Amino acid sequence: MTTLRDQRVTIVGGGMGGLASALVLRRQGAQVTLFEHAPAFGEVGAGIQLGPNATRILGEWGLLDEVIARGYRPENLVLKDAITGEVLTKQSLGREFVERYGAPYVVIHRSDLHAILLEAAEREGVELLVDSHVQGIDDDGDGVVVTLADGRTHRSDAVLAADGLASLTRDRIVGDAPVASGYVAYRGTLPETRGHGNDVVAWLGPRCHFVQYPIRRGEMLNMVAVFQSPAFLRGETEWGGVDELDAAYEACSPEVKEAVQHLWRDRRWPMFDREPATTWGDGRVTLIGDSAHPMLQYLAQGACQALEDAHSLDVLAARTPGDWPATFGALADLRQPRTARVQRTARVWGEIWHVDGVARVLRNELLEQRDVEDYRYLDWLYGRGVGEPAAQDAEDRRALLTEEAAR
Amino acid sequence: MTTLRDQRVTIVGGGMGGLASALVLRRQGAQVTLFEHAPAFGEVGAGIQLGPNATRILGEWGLLDEVIARGYRPENLVLKDAITGEVLTKQSLGREFVERYGAPYVVIHRSDLHAILLEAAEREGVELLVDSHVQGIDDDGDGVVVTLADGRTHRSDAVLAADGLASLTRDRIVGDAPVASGYVAYRGTLPETRGHGNDVVAWLGPRCHFVQYPIRRGEMLNMVAVFQSPAFLRGETEWGGVDELDAAYEACSPEVKEAVQHLWRDRRWPMFDREPATTWGDGRVTLIGDSAHPMLQYLAQGACQALEDAHSLDVLAARTPGDWPATFGALADLRQPRTARVQRTARVWGEIWHVDGVARVLRNELLEQRDVEDYRYLDWLYGRGVGEPAAQDAEDRRALLTEEAAR
Repeated sequence: MTTLRDQRVTIVGGGMGGLASALVLRRQGAQVTLFEHAPAFGEVGAGIQLGPNATRILGEWGLLDEVIARGYRPENLVLKDAITGEVLTKQSLGREFVERYGAPYVVIHRSDLHAILLEAAEREGVELLVDSHVQGIDDDGDGVVVTLADGRTHRSDAVLAADGLASLTRDRIVGDAPVASGYVAYRGTLPETRGHGNDVVAWLGPRCHFVQYPIRRGEMLNMVAVFQSPAFLRGETEWGGVDELDAAYEACSPEVKEAVQHLWRDRRWPMFDREPATTWGDGRVTLIGDSAHPMLQYLAQGACQALEDAHSLDVLAARTPGDWPATFGALADLRQPRTARVQRTARVWGEIWHVDGVARVLRNELLEQRDVEDYRYLDWLYGRGVGEPAAQDAEDRRALLTEEAAR
Repeated sequence: MTTLRDQRVTIVGGGMGGLASALVLRRQGAQVTLFEHAPAFGEVGAGIQLGPNATRILGEWGLLDEVIARGYRPENLVLKDAITGEVLTKQSLGREFVERYGAPYVVIHRSDLHAILLEAAEREGVELLVDSHVQGIDDDGDGVVVTLADGRTHRSDAVLAADGLASLTRDRIVGDAPVASGYVAYRGTLPETRGHGNDVVAWLGPRCHFVQYPIRRGEMLNMVAVFQSPAFLRGETEWGGVDELDAAYEACSPEVKEAVQHLWRDRRWPMFDREPATTWGDGRVTLIGDSAHPMLQYLAQGACQALEDAHSLDVLAARTPGDWPATFGALADLRQPRTARVQRTARVWGEIWHVDGVARVLRNELLEQRDVEDYRYLDWLYGRGVGEPAAQDAEDRRALLTEEAAR
């Protein structure tokens, strides 16, 4: 496609959102330069879950076969109570699920997904530059000039800032700060699945949860433990340390307590998001992915929403080729309500996952009574066409859990 | 019946439980003397709800026609959200309900139910004495001597202490103290139903609720408002004053806020219960009704459980006539697990009624998804034969909401 042949686009940040955006714009003919701050491309972390809203897009881009080949297709999503170990509800990811949403549920190592996107961008001819710390982004009327820390400058017609949670560009455009959730994640992988089975299993406990699933064609077991830091609640600046890890799972079932022993203890992920922003862009510059809508991970949608952003960008850039303020305005109009909803709903589900006392009784009852064919909490997120504004309709009332909780 | 013709029984307290116990024992031929502390028999309060577990018993005693004639049969139990006014769930009390439980749901003015029991006890020849403050209950081997504040003494073969929440007899037998819930009730009646309709409606709000239903053949509207006292939470000894009433409903729908204006403001009921007791009796002396198992009102079971006590007493006294330690031992064995469960479950439902935040979202979802023909939360309470130990079975797992919440 040559729609954007005369356009030069700069991408700041080589994570999932930056690579995906680079890929789709390059495929329309744009000259795309991507600056990555780090000395090499790569992803830290362990497994990542891709709902059908993301795999549908990867399919359109021709990348799904490779994602499936390097990842794993779990049979079920299973929620268990972390204290009793009892199954609360189970969502089959089999044929009915795939037919309903038009794509499979896939789990994959983050580094594998990142590599697939990176290789695709390379194949298409995206200019990929590491060790490139963008310090300034200035629109001089004719275009946007990006200034790097080493003094290099780079002129282009548009800039996409895919610089993540701690986005410097967001500081200028929105001016808000990340919000600490007080929860911290520990991750880990094991080179065998230790009889785990074929499911994504999440154990929900008071102020903690634990998730486990196979990745790499089932040859590796992925684990993540997320808990509320007592030190954070005491107002301390250092929080979520390894000293808090074991105590957080003290009340949990033996199975969970044992599994927690196998997490990496030398690295942790304190969890932050931000309030939904109403402005993402400024003329020829826009935020995209996590910089636009950083979210808690309770719906496993961080990377998925970045892929949705890139997918919408692809469609919209073709409608108004070269008119970047129009493209970016339309992108924010389309994507802001959707991503704000995912951000807010992720917070609510985080609360739901971590309740104690009578709220835990209510949650367990609600999940245990759930019909296995009840898709009311999934359709708004995974349904076809839900990236479109028309989907923000009355049928999606269930997802307004968010708004009700915020009252 | 003359099973107990040679037996003399003393009842301490002329509330629902005392009168009902007096009635059943007198009908078996016992000479029954009932001492009431107050200068006259009567009941303070407004409406009372009688589930089918209570009306089934009133039917057996031949009193149900009169209860229905003086009371009201509502069409539905309706739960609404107090903030939005939205209906959360509705339980029809029509033919299916009546057939399932073998008796109707009736609401009635407390004073009307009390009068029906009092008149029945009088008709049967129970000796009813007011202004009688029982100070001592002493088993001297031949029988029990009750000593009154004015020096009178009264000898009998057995004593039932139906002296309510603040029972002096319980002080001696159990030695525990009432537990303040921090919630207070305001009640009221209006001489017209003001378009309320035919239902028992409960509006559930954060830290408050409001209930409204017709009584006296639909000629009177009964109201009760229950809310958590901020003064109690601050540790003050005076709590639940009228100054806290309006503020407690500030966030509620206009309908609720308006209705609260019509409550009596010169009287309030701070709500207490006690922990379930494992011992109710001491030889020829037993607690019965509220003295044995005072409960919060969230299942509307205080009077109903006192009637169940009297019904079981009736059956058990006929099995071991005159052997009061055996009768009272069997009564406690039969009734303690059941009433302890009602006490605990009432606390849990109180929590559920008053939740805020994400727990409110979960509660509303659970209630909104409830099938109108789903009786899982009612069978354990209203089902036939549930007063029997055999009913404490696996089928009643749902009622174990209590035990789960207590973990």
